[in-house]
Amino acid sequence: MGNCLVAQSGGPTSVINATVAGIVESNRLNPIYDHVYGGLNGIEGILAGRIVDLTRLTDYQIRVLKQTCASALGSCRYKLKRENTEDFRKLFLILDKLNVDTMFYVGGNDSMDTVAALSQYAEENGITGHRFVGCPKTVDNDLVIIDHTPGFGSAAKFMNVVAKTTWLDYNVYTRQEVFILETMGRDAGWLAASTVLSGVVDLLVLPEVPFDKERFFELVREKLSAKNKCYIVISEGARFADGTYVAAAEAKNDGFGHAILGGAGVALKNMLLEEGVCERAKVQDMSTLQRCNISCQSRTDVEESFKLGMSAHMRSMDPAFTGKMVALKRIEGRPYDPVFFAVNASQVANYVKRVPKEWILPDYQGMTKEFHDYVQPLILGEPELIMDNGIPAQMPPFYMKRG
Amino acid sequence: MGNCLVAQSGGPTSVINATVAGIVESNRLNPIYDHVYGGLNGIEGILAGRIVDLTRLTDYQIRVLKQTCASALGSCRYKLKRENTEDFRKLFLILDKLNVDTMFYVGGNDSMDTVAALSQYAEENGITGHRFVGCPKTVDNDLVIIDHTPGFGSAAKFMNVVAKTTWLDYNVYTRQEVFILETMGRDAGWLAASTVLSGVVDLLVLPEVPFDKERFFELVREKLSAKNKCYIVISEGARFADGTYVAAAEAKNDGFGHAILGGAGVALKNMLLEEGVCERAKVQDMSTLQRCNISCQSRTDVEESFKLGMSAHMRSMDPAFTGKMVALKRIEGRPYDPVFFAVNASQVANYVKRVPKEWILPDYQGMTKEFHDYVQPLILGEPELIMDNGIPAQMPPFYMKRG
Repeated sequence: MGNCLVAQSGGPTSVINATVAGIVESNRLNPIYDHVYGGLNGIEGILAGRIVDLTRLTDYQIRVLKQTCASALGSCRYKLKRENTEDFRKLFLILDKLNVDTMFYVGGNDSMDTVAALSQYAEENGITGHRFVGCPKTVDNDLVIIDHTPGFGSAAKFMNVVAKTTWLDYNVYTRQEVFILETMGRDAGWLAASTVLSGVVDLLVLPEVPFDKERFFELVREKLSAKNKCYIVISEGARFADGTYVAAAEAKNDGFGHAILGGAGVALKNMLLEEGVCERAKVQDMSTLQRCNISCQSRTDVEESFKLGMSAHMRSMDPAFTGKMVALKRIEGRPYDPVFFAVNASQVANYVKRVPKEWILPDYQGMTKEFHDYVQPLILGEPELIMDNGIPAQMPPFYMKRG
Repeated sequence: MGNCLVAQSGGPTSVINATVAGIVESNRLNPIYDHVYGGLNGIEGILAGRIVDLTRLTDYQIRVLKQTCASALGSCRYKLKRENTEDFRKLFLILDKLNVDTMFYVGGNDSMDTVAALSQYAEENGITGHRFVGCPKTVDNDLVIIDHTPGFGSAAKFMNVVAKTTWLDYNVYTRQEVFILETMGRDAGWLAASTVLSGVVDLLVLPEVPFDKERFFELVREKLSAKNKCYIVISEGARFADGTYVAAAEAKNDGFGHAILGGAGVALKNMLLEEGVCERAKVQDMSTLQRCNISCQSRTDVEESFKLGMSAHMRSMDPAFTGKMVALKRIEGRPYDPVFFAVNASQVANYVKRVPKEWILPDYQGMTKEFHDYVQPLILGEPELIMDNGIPAQMPPFYMKRG
């Protein structure tokens, strides 16, 4: 019997380890592989021979791994380039040495491209006996075909808590104040848009809608004259009509030309203050905390990610199951209960799913009911956590020395 | 029978409403007051006659109020000045009009001074029949006499989660990186120091220890050469030996002299980069989120705050109970189980409790076992929450129009 290898890539999420835990668990239930190896720091570490054995994780360890945030196997931004055949040769040598039949790669866009490239390389070079399987994850929710990406639900839940918390806080004083919450999401506005579920967002700026400064300032002034407050959520990827990032405005204003002082939030704040739209504005940028917060996972998201790992493991019994990504489908007209299915990784790699225009209300006023209905089930439920002295127990990263 | 009035002041916490909920609940169990009124936006709103009636809150509403973050009654920074007798006269007129026997004021240092000033004014002017009772709260934990302040435990729990999360995240890539987490705390290092419980802090900068830049940079360099990473926690109130704030370094470097670009964290980052100590540094400033996070309360903290409100209400039956603050005492040598007691508010007002020097390890290396033992029980437990579509249910602020 052969072995399998699992690795993680790209930015961490709250549930990326749940998928790894699902693969390990599934192999306990049906040991189709002698060993479940973990590759450290993605392709980069695998190429350097940095491998751990996950086969014998106990039930307790799997439970802790399932609730552990960030990438317990480490990550990398290293991308296999199709023209760099040396990397490919080296990787297949390592897989052969470890007797690896199946490699699972947990990641986003780029990782799906790696899965597609590896299976394509094997096919083109007549190499048989290897399967490459992608398991999606990204808080950006920007992968095509899949209904939503594992990791998005927990990030959305956390950002709604952040929005509600900071809104409750900035309201306690009667003074005039604009609050600006910046979110991740790259060129897709999913995570920013998700914050409308908190019910506190006055104005929402998404990358999908060109940022019209004059009109926007008018709307901020209206809110301030009505209630002395304005709560704004802006996506890091927000752009002006000419395509430049709102975040870039800050860099332009910096006479030294060597420093972008902040993201879209800080840029917007400075514009508001400079043009006298408000007297006081506060920016909150959650940075990396929003993608892998320990204490605010969505149970729905955790369980889906875990099951997605199990599904990938089970499907990999089929020798023809290569170049595939396991995905989730929602059945229209039925209560939320997504179905797992497989898709060619090449159909997902290098595409970006943006927020549909028809779900976006005009004038930065938020999102339609259809969007609310889409996101609501994804943030439901809280996992029952194993606690460690008041903090959710976390698996020590595998890439660190034990002892 | 007379009435009572409760108001909140100063910065919000995660559990400041639990104290209000405790007062309302205690009056349901033993209705010593006909009405429990809430004063909106502290003294400022009371002087403007902005009052709500909390007497008939249902059991369910009390449970939701107990888990609601920030100040549901609103807050103010308005301070009653002893020389401004006009304010005093006006306030007593309002209390008489509402037939208020007892006023509870939930707040920090300044609020305890208000409690002391009001009871002193009554005594000096021969006004009888009013009691003024302080209920402490502050995430800064900087009040004297009391073992710890309500609000601190939840903030400490959350900041430990933040530290652990961001540490797990910044470690997934192998690149060199310094991470800087800035915390609140004013001139006391309690909240910053509490993060050592996460087990991830390499270097800790507190206001209690002068910041020696040269020595500190040496230590950062050592960490980086040992493991390519250095996780730093710095308190917003950190100072150089000459007394200037580390945060002020940033303002000094700004040639325009009109903007402080950030707090202590950003200032430290810029120093590290400018002096070439590291190639890459990231700063996380949680801002207001750390004082009233919705999804990361400490059960210990919530319950203590609730019971403190009940204790204050019960004690206020005694007509002589005025100018007092209800406090918590830990019994040495016994398992953690604090005792409630009363202290004169004047003994607390205008003093600051800083972190004892003997609990601070040299060379920014963290805290002693005594400090760990002091903080550990305060962050234990998670309240059972009433959820509302995936987010902990929150009482709509009383200071907003209902509709």
